[in-house]
Amino acid sequence: MRNVFHEQLDAVFEDLTRICGQVEIAVRRATESLLTGDAAVAEQVITGDAEIDRAREKVEESAFELLSLQQPVAGDLRVIIAALRMVTELERMGDLSVHVAKIARLRVPNVAVPDAIRATMTSMGETAEDMVRRVGQIIEKRDVGAAIELGRDDEVMDRLRRDSFAQLLGDDWEHGVEAAVDIALLGRYYERIADHAVSIANRVVFVVTGQNPRSIES
Amino acid sequence: MRNVFHEQLDAVFEDLTRICGQVEIAVRRATESLLTGDAAVAEQVITGDAEIDRAREKVEESAFELLSLQQPVAGDLRVIIAALRMVTELERMGDLSVHVAKIARLRVPNVAVPDAIRATMTSMGETAEDMVRRVGQIIEKRDVGAAIELGRDDEVMDRLRRDSFAQLLGDDWEHGVEAAVDIALLGRYYERIADHAVSIANRVVFVVTGQNPRSIES
Repeated sequence: MRNVFHEQLDAVFEDLTRICGQVEIAVRRATESLLTGDAAVAEQVITGDAEIDRAREKVEESAFELLSLQQPVAGDLRVIIAALRMVTELERMGDLSVHVAKIARLRVPNVAVPDAIRATMTSMGETAEDMVRRVGQIIEKRDVGAAIELGRDDEVMDRLRRDSFAQLLGDDWEHGVEAAVDIALLGRYYERIADHAVSIANRVVFVVTGQNPRSIES
Repeated sequence: MRNVFHEQLDAVFEDLTRICGQVEIAVRRATESLLTGDAAVAEQVITGDAEIDRAREKVEESAFELLSLQQPVAGDLRVIIAALRMVTELERMGDLSVHVAKIARLRVPNVAVPDAIRATMTSMGETAEDMVRRVGQIIEKRDVGAAIELGRDDEVMDRLRRDSFAQLLGDDWEHGVEAAVDIALLGRYYERIADHAVSIANRVVFVVTGQNPRSIES
């Protein structure tokens, strides 16, 4: 049955899709600033984060209103709680993009990523951005199949992170401690963006099916 | 007015206090394993985390039940949502302790922390543990004064992290890239534990006063 509650819930999910689009731009620009050393682009990510924070607050207020006025129970209640958790994770992904951009800014006029590891870090940035783009579509279309697939692809990021460590800790690393520390932390930030994308995808599976992905796959 | 709702809510906060105690033990053991290279203690943290996860699930179920059966509105609704967020953060602090313990385990039979930076890392571990201990009391006693104080003390962790970077990136760092990468990631994990402690303290302020700490202080 479609009713006011479900129309308002749809509006919340439209907001989530829109915020995911903002996060996608933040991740793309953060990676761009990192690979080019462009301080202006890094600055865009850092100052632009306030907009994502405001959008999160708006979703939270809508969700509280829905909870307070519509008094949902059972499944509907869990869907709104899931939406609240999704927006928290999206905001966090924005924060992580800011962390990437701040490392980029710190090294201007240099580039934080040495050429030797540029390919790995480019792939990490592209993988993170791609996962955020896909999770936006997953939220928009409530696409359970794509959500389960995203969970499986998380291993791409894990492999890239292992590759980056192998390079940093290899005998032929000649870029010193500072670059190694930057790369290790950047890898951590991108990995967390990917973790959150998978977590949001799992929440969409739960929202649509009432089950967690693991119980569906098995 | 005390009623069934508020009794059940008290029970949720008792559970949160108990989980915070489990997290405190996890942080303490993680630091111990890190400073001693004791694989058995690291293993306790890693396997023990499942218990924190189960405790989180229990709190989530209690909160859902409260929301579903008692249909709270306005302030009471926000308090339960705050409790749900607090338990998510406590679980995350447990995960971060596991990350610390895994670095310790990875370097056995060696110790991940070189002597030159041992004092700084010991302080970081102690500061994190102290913040978790204090936030447990803050949850238990709904202590707004102590919560606001905890937020102010967060700068201790920031300073320790800056100190660690100064040591890693100083000319006299002679422990190579691997130790530096370990220290940078460990610093990140401890910093996140401290961030979550402050965030939980802020949620307690909100639960008690209905206001965020910033608006109270100003």
